[in-house]
Amino acid sequence: MSRVLLFLEIKLENFEFRLIKKDKNCQARAGVIKTPHGEVNTPVFMPVGTQATVKTLSSEDLNQIGAELILGNTYHLYLRPGHQLIEKAGGLHQFMSWKKPILTDSGGFQVFSLNSLTKTTEEGVRFQSHLDGSYHLFTPEKVMEIEKSLGADIIMTLDQPVSYPCSFEQAKRANDLTNLWAERCKTEFERIVSEKPSKHQQALFGIIQGSTYPDLRRKSAEYLLDLNFSGYAIGGLSLGEPKVTTQEMIELSISYLPEDKPRYLMGVGTPEDMIESVYRGVDMFDCVLPTRNARNGSLFTKFGKMIIKNREYADDFSPVDSECGCSTCRNYTRAYLRHLFHTGEITALRLATIHSLYFYMDLMRKMREAILSDNFLEWREKFLKDYHSDESEVEKLPSCQMRSIHPNPPI
Amino acid sequence: MSRVLLFLEIKLENFEFRLIKKDKNCQARAGVIKTPHGEVNTPVFMPVGTQATVKTLSSEDLNQIGAELILGNTYHLYLRPGHQLIEKAGGLHQFMSWKKPILTDSGGFQVFSLNSLTKTTEEGVRFQSHLDGSYHLFTPEKVMEIEKSLGADIIMTLDQPVSYPCSFEQAKRANDLTNLWAERCKTEFERIVSEKPSKHQQALFGIIQGSTYPDLRRKSAEYLLDLNFSGYAIGGLSLGEPKVTTQEMIELSISYLPEDKPRYLMGVGTPEDMIESVYRGVDMFDCVLPTRNARNGSLFTKFGKMIIKNREYADDFSPVDSECGCSTCRNYTRAYLRHLFHTGEITALRLATIHSLYFYMDLMRKMREAILSDNFLEWREKFLKDYHSDESEVEKLPSCQMRSIHPNPPI
Repeated sequence: MSRVLLFLEIKLENFEFRLIKKDKNCQARAGVIKTPHGEVNTPVFMPVGTQATVKTLSSEDLNQIGAELILGNTYHLYLRPGHQLIEKAGGLHQFMSWKKPILTDSGGFQVFSLNSLTKTTEEGVRFQSHLDGSYHLFTPEKVMEIEKSLGADIIMTLDQPVSYPCSFEQAKRANDLTNLWAERCKTEFERIVSEKPSKHQQALFGIIQGSTYPDLRRKSAEYLLDLNFSGYAIGGLSLGEPKVTTQEMIELSISYLPEDKPRYLMGVGTPEDMIESVYRGVDMFDCVLPTRNARNGSLFTKFGKMIIKNREYADDFSPVDSECGCSTCRNYTRAYLRHLFHTGEITALRLATIHSLYFYMDLMRKMREAILSDNFLEWREKFLKDYHSDESEVEKLPSCQMRSIHPNPPI
Repeated sequence: MSRVLLFLEIKLENFEFRLIKKDKNCQARAGVIKTPHGEVNTPVFMPVGTQATVKTLSSEDLNQIGAELILGNTYHLYLRPGHQLIEKAGGLHQFMSWKKPILTDSGGFQVFSLNSLTKTTEEGVRFQSHLDGSYHLFTPEKVMEIEKSLGADIIMTLDQPVSYPCSFEQAKRANDLTNLWAERCKTEFERIVSEKPSKHQQALFGIIQGSTYPDLRRKSAEYLLDLNFSGYAIGGLSLGEPKVTTQEMIELSISYLPEDKPRYLMGVGTPEDMIESVYRGVDMFDCVLPTRNARNGSLFTKFGKMIIKNREYADDFSPVDSECGCSTCRNYTRAYLRHLFHTGEITALRLATIHSLYFYMDLMRKMREAILSDNFLEWREKFLKDYHSDESEVEKLPSCQMRSIHPNPPI
């Protein structure tokens, strides 16, 4: 217990999570995360700003869409333009002119997913840049230094993700390393905080791994809880495992987590994935799905996905969604968007991104409202019914598999 | 004169050009063009919206930049999405959600510049689509039908442009055809107006051609004046001829034009080109230069062009232009823009376009202010001095050749 006591000494004045309301019929919860750059209402979806921009959008666009928290990728920013340059600019907020909260990941996931040859030791992970082949070493201490320079409000520990499927032995080795690195991250983070106090004090989250092995998930959660992080992420899911397994692992991980800390499900997901996860008590999400799909002309709507390039929209002068409040729907028609995609106009990518991200933001707002009025279950049923009403459209798409999993999992 | 009298019978209630002020020291003039979609202050620069969008921008962006009049390309819109579709949408304004005035060209220039095989007869010009090789025929009557469907506030007659250099005989043949087509356009236009009156009455402009032959320019101008168009364009310039010739042809063409009609120099140009042309009495411009160069990372500033990808801007945390009022300069730094270009982010293209188009709009506002206070000559001198102050930068660029021509041409 000496470790716990040591870590409790540092108080993060700028970070706080308040649980506002839990739906009386399920685990879904509404909260507020207080950060040095403002408050964030949960459940929250973080648009992904990999290279210091959410692809195709400006910071003004993100404000208009109603984004409250965005994600930056440490791996990419470390390589280009470099964390020292961003520190010199006054931090990532200043560099990209975004005044609201930011979370940076640790880069661990990108190191392993963008590089075929990595060398992992207890010290850290050695990798080659996917840009120029140059060699780099990420240690827990190095990652803390980089994330300190970037200056996000919430930063993540370095973890070793595993792919799916993964043997128990592999998953256990990765877990042991992830735990060790988490502890070293925490130590280094505390050292930096005490040596260089900042008015924009950062908060550090730990990442629960353990693949699809319940025992490893439990051990990972317990280990991290001892380290007393400001929040807990659930990593290593949505990697191809059955959706029912994903949700089981989420439930299991959450069962070990305290109520008074935010829970962040990394890299997830579809509207259905997020709804099922909020139902189980998740507060935070990030995913490239709405932005990447938008750039390919696949838009999210309350009636499922819309492939805007389809011929049926050629002379359809209604908005993508007549009830949507986004600037794309208020100003432009399906026919116009289709024309822009067909002629290869860059404007198409931004207008589509604005719509789909607004849809995600709006989905979060609606879930929060439903929770606040103890109405999450009814809302979920109604939403999913509408969302799957246009089966012909939905069935074309591989990522909508949620209907096949059990609708009312044990809480 | 019977032709003139006939054409004078139709009154265009929605179109008017008011000359507000002529600088007492030169031919530069400030005016207002009244159109069915609002007023346009001249001198005016029209951003080019080839395919129903100014590349990378939304209509909201154009409003923010202060655009008052934009250009649409008849050739491109005829091929995709088709003028009937745009008519069905309620016209080009409605289709692209742009409430302010629009001008459409006739497509003549694109037919000849985008197609190596065209067949021109007295009837019209037969060409193959650059998209799918399909055959099409543009006659003066067909072009009026297309432009009527698009519904722009100002529409252009079909002309036959010539390349530079061009023999006198070639230029004369093209001129004769252009004149014949202009007359047929006017006749067809009048027929459409009388048969289908519209609350958004369009105005038709004629195009003076004649290559670099003074005699042909004069004949072209005189012929078109007889037809009594709502405004006159000067075409067939900036095609590679010496800049001094360009300006001579502009002066010559303008010398035949009445004071009470707007003058539009097609496809021009650089800031220097426009300043020299306003000096000679031109009111309207369009050019892809600011938008195309911006997408290549070459920005216009009052100190010349800025190649934003250059290494010197890597850690330059000042805006592109600290005195510029555009949203890019108010929110982002040179270092950030450089980063976005280097990482291939689409956001870069839009932020750069916003800056350079704002620079063009601002240049027009400044010219107008200078004219209104009889200060155009001093303003011009000061502007050009600043603009060429960073010689090292400017000399890299091929399009800034104006310094070599005589600074005070005869008025």
